[in-house]
Amino acid sequence: MSYTAPVKDMLFDIEHLAGIEQIAQLPGFEEAGLETAQAVLEECAKFNEGVVAPLNVEGDRNPSSWKDGRVTTTPGFAAAYKQYAEGGWQGLQHPVDFGGQGLPKAIGAACGEMLNSANLSFALCPLLTDGAIEALLTAGSDDLKAVYLEKLVTGEWTGTMNLTEPQAGSDLALVRSRAEPQPDGSYKVFGTKIFITYGEHDMADNIVHLVLAKIPGSPEGVKGISLFVVPKFLVNKDGSLGARNDVHCVSIEHKLGIKASPTAVLQYGDNGGAVGYIVGEENRGLEYMFIMMNAARYAVGVQGIAVAERAYQKAVAYARDRVQSRPVDGSVSGPAPIIHHPDVRRMLMTMRAYTEGCRAMASVAAAAYDAAHHHPDAAARKQNQAFYEFLVPLVKGYSTEMSLEVTSLGVQVHGGMGFIEETGAAQYYRDAKILTIYEGTTAIQANDLVGRKTARDGGQTAQAIAAQIEKTEGELAKRDSVAARAVAKRLTAARKAFLDVVAYVVQQGKASPNAVFAGSVPYLMLAGNLVAGWQMARALLVAEDLLQKGQDAAFMRAKIATARFYADHILAKAPGMRDSIVEGADSVTALPLEAF
Amino acid sequence: MSYTAPVKDMLFDIEHLAGIEQIAQLPGFEEAGLETAQAVLEECAKFNEGVVAPLNVEGDRNPSSWKDGRVTTTPGFAAAYKQYAEGGWQGLQHPVDFGGQGLPKAIGAACGEMLNSANLSFALCPLLTDGAIEALLTAGSDDLKAVYLEKLVTGEWTGTMNLTEPQAGSDLALVRSRAEPQPDGSYKVFGTKIFITYGEHDMADNIVHLVLAKIPGSPEGVKGISLFVVPKFLVNKDGSLGARNDVHCVSIEHKLGIKASPTAVLQYGDNGGAVGYIVGEENRGLEYMFIMMNAARYAVGVQGIAVAERAYQKAVAYARDRVQSRPVDGSVSGPAPIIHHPDVRRMLMTMRAYTEGCRAMASVAAAAYDAAHHHPDAAARKQNQAFYEFLVPLVKGYSTEMSLEVTSLGVQVHGGMGFIEETGAAQYYRDAKILTIYEGTTAIQANDLVGRKTARDGGQTAQAIAAQIEKTEGELAKRDSVAARAVAKRLTAARKAFLDVVAYVVQQGKASPNAVFAGSVPYLMLAGNLVAGWQMARALLVAEDLLQKGQDAAFMRAKIATARFYADHILAKAPGMRDSIVEGADSVTALPLEAF
Repeated sequence: MSYTAPVKDMLFDIEHLAGIEQIAQLPGFEEAGLETAQAVLEECAKFNEGVVAPLNVEGDRNPSSWKDGRVTTTPGFAAAYKQYAEGGWQGLQHPVDFGGQGLPKAIGAACGEMLNSANLSFALCPLLTDGAIEALLTAGSDDLKAVYLEKLVTGEWTGTMNLTEPQAGSDLALVRSRAEPQPDGSYKVFGTKIFITYGEHDMADNIVHLVLAKIPGSPEGVKGISLFVVPKFLVNKDGSLGARNDVHCVSIEHKLGIKASPTAVLQYGDNGGAVGYIVGEENRGLEYMFIMMNAARYAVGVQGIAVAERAYQKAVAYARDRVQSRPVDGSVSGPAPIIHHPDVRRMLMTMRAYTEGCRAMASVAAAAYDAAHHHPDAAARKQNQAFYEFLVPLVKGYSTEMSLEVTSLGVQVHGGMGFIEETGAAQYYRDAKILTIYEGTTAIQANDLVGRKTARDGGQTAQAIAAQIEKTEGELAKRDSVAARAVAKRLTAARKAFLDVVAYVVQQGKASPNAVFAGSVPYLMLAGNLVAGWQMARALLVAEDLLQKGQDAAFMRAKIATARFYADHILAKAPGMRDSIVEGADSVTALPLEAF
Repeated sequence: MSYTAPVKDMLFDIEHLAGIEQIAQLPGFEEAGLETAQAVLEECAKFNEGVVAPLNVEGDRNPSSWKDGRVTTTPGFAAAYKQYAEGGWQGLQHPVDFGGQGLPKAIGAACGEMLNSANLSFALCPLLTDGAIEALLTAGSDDLKAVYLEKLVTGEWTGTMNLTEPQAGSDLALVRSRAEPQPDGSYKVFGTKIFITYGEHDMADNIVHLVLAKIPGSPEGVKGISLFVVPKFLVNKDGSLGARNDVHCVSIEHKLGIKASPTAVLQYGDNGGAVGYIVGEENRGLEYMFIMMNAARYAVGVQGIAVAERAYQKAVAYARDRVQSRPVDGSVSGPAPIIHHPDVRRMLMTMRAYTEGCRAMASVAAAAYDAAHHHPDAAARKQNQAFYEFLVPLVKGYSTEMSLEVTSLGVQVHGGMGFIEETGAAQYYRDAKILTIYEGTTAIQANDLVGRKTARDGGQTAQAIAAQIEKTEGELAKRDSVAARAVAKRLTAARKAFLDVVAYVVQQGKASPNAVFAGSVPYLMLAGNLVAGWQMARALLVAEDLLQKGQDAAFMRAKIATARFYADHILAKAPGMRDSIVEGADSVTALPLEAF
């Protein structure tokens, strides 16, 4: 088997870190306890291991192709997508009213990881559909919801996000696409959109494009952008498909990775205008798009975890199989599988610890999202929302940055064979590189963390998280195990480093924006490192307790060992990062522009 | 221009850090002063910028191809190689007696960097020829030298290194190729060699394979390996080419990067045996191969610097050109080139600091090599040899590992465009990944550093280097500039961290080999970080002096700013690395093998 879903680790997080039984107390989630989680995850694992994962290599060797405006996806993709839709996987987290299953994100996120581990390119189509669903749920009129939502939730149709234009990437103020109001209340949309994931394909009957455009006469910049639904095929009153709309795929990109995912250039309105329907109110498009973006950012973070997990599994399999050299400790008398060599174990442990740490962080963030949306108490909703929003840039930024290191180590474990494409390790290295870029680069995530998530509330949310972490340190201090003590030491140092940086960001934010933003990505990396490490520390506490109760000793011992490795080798970086941020800002911007 | 050789920075290192005027005092290097260096570097820049660099993208898009045993290189490669050979570039560092120019490595290394920046794939052919020359110079008989050396030094023929077999990668004890003695003193060679760089190509008339094989009846393991010359075409007594030898290229690899460099599978002896000639004595093959390897390892380190430089130049060009968003400090009122944004500058400074730091380290290592080979005083030779040998794993391991980070940042600066292959940034990211693997993975370098370079002399060489660094700290302490003080603080902390690790390696080496080797790569990274940072600190001292004298103020200020950035953001990692190594070994090997 090329991929085995880490169901046990996921359920550990869902049960003990995300607290699924508390989630199941929330209105609307009554059926979503541990048993449901286990049943869904096991079914999901079966589907992804058996159907989606085997297509991953094929997608890389035989990418989606473009001819005369049509995109043909990798052989097998369309059939697998049909199974995906028919299995109800698209609707997992979406409302029952529109054909979904209404499960918590804490369960949905784990399923998302499996799909992405199985096949990053394939998973992008559902990922974008999720974003379109979120936007319509939040801001779509009843008419739009009636026409589009169920088709999207069932996976019969797919969705896209159309933000980027050649001159407008991170800077959406530069969007030029325009939407001209028509007498019937619809709009005619004109413009060019690039980097549109699954902007054209052959896996579904219709594609629902969510498009940012400006209505003539609207304000300059981001305050004048509106959001439109532009379907590939117009929809008749009876729900059947009508005429082909005036949106066409003029090319797809030749990319470093995720080659099976068609990245389209879409041309709107070359033949009179593409028919579009406004979502919500005029000029609030960016706000709505951020709803999609935030869902998508979390999901991209999960992609990082997913590709890291797959790279780890492949590296472990190779390290067990490849025989080279005698172990330095003499434990084997002749050449041994390379997993015996300490540096190979260091690489595998690094891969494993990053992956488990980020998975735990994402699981806890998902639980906060569930509580933020379902908790009966407004204060609890607000608190959970703040926590979730703080974590989104960490889940996105940190999990994807770590996936670069993990997939690089994955190649390294394979030695020379890793550089040969047939081996397959290099695909993860190539695929992962997009994750730190799309749905907002790491720098964009870091801007969000610094501005909206830290400076805006004067560091309150950040400090509240630090206070929670201090409580975990208190729990660790009560244990007398070597591992708990080692983890407590690193966690305390990392938390203090984090608090120093938070204070620096809050104090310097207005006076020295350059200084703060010079350290924004390192701040994100420090915060992500800390929060993931904190979750590993919580996991260690749980694992020690369960070990004492005699529950699954091998798993619990492995969790303890991995948590300690995380603390010793990853959390240990935090104080140095603090120094660079707090004391090193001047040297970031000291070189005059002309001297580069 | 797609590449501009950093001649000024190279000459700064050669003059002020490597001390070219002292090198020119050494017997044999009388002509090799600063003026010569400048003349050679400028000529070399012209050739590489104009002839070799333009072929780099073409090599990626139109790689070398194999058909019926023949390899056709990328269009333009053969003609460029002819110019390379005719220009005398292959012989730069090789003896005048065999048609070379006998220049110091301090100059040759800079030329090597240019060739590799221009085109990593192209440069591999000369790189391997250099290794073959070294081996023949050291251990070849007069006959072998007479037949092969001048042809190799002039670049008329090229050389290869044949170590790897499918079952024998890092572990050469597993070599199975055999060489059967013939009555005339020659051998017949049989076996399969893989991963042979430029093992077959169409750029030169003959290929001189240096091949590891076992003579039947020789001892087991690495003590029974001998080294042979096996030419593609036999050479007649008059020096003309004779019959085709029984070595054939049966395929080339489909790789992640360096696609224009043909990586051959070579089959020896399928038709009766390939004629080979022993190099030096029986069973000393590994020893001779290490001569080639050490030259090649240094050269691969330079490849890391080279690809980092090229990625940096491309990223700077894009960052000056791409306009997105208003700077956070309000210094530009509308959207500005992204080089104005602090995080883009952080990325560019990181790329620049790593590149300059590693270049300086390599330059100083080259000077030590020159002194080790040319100094009239035996004690000075020995001391320089020890210093050089300590630095080789750092130059190789650290410069290539940093090139992964730098080329990844290069893609990141380009945002979404970086992921599109047409942009070209992704090629560097793909190409660089081989550098931490071939000629010994980073772990193999680290084993060398721990074992032969640190433990064997009880840490003496390492401590001697630390003592030198402390002197530099003393110099910095005499300055009253903010930059010098900032650098001194980080350098002191990093040196102390290094000394702790050295003590740990020496003390634990025998008792706890697993613990020491669990930290071997982190030790290498810490040592490389420190030595490169030390050279940046020395550069800062020189730059402050020259700035005061009014010499090239813009360059000197840039050097000071870059040195400070290196200290604040890279050297600052050292104490955390020390903690992981000295306190974190247990958690590397705590997880039982079956739990992965």
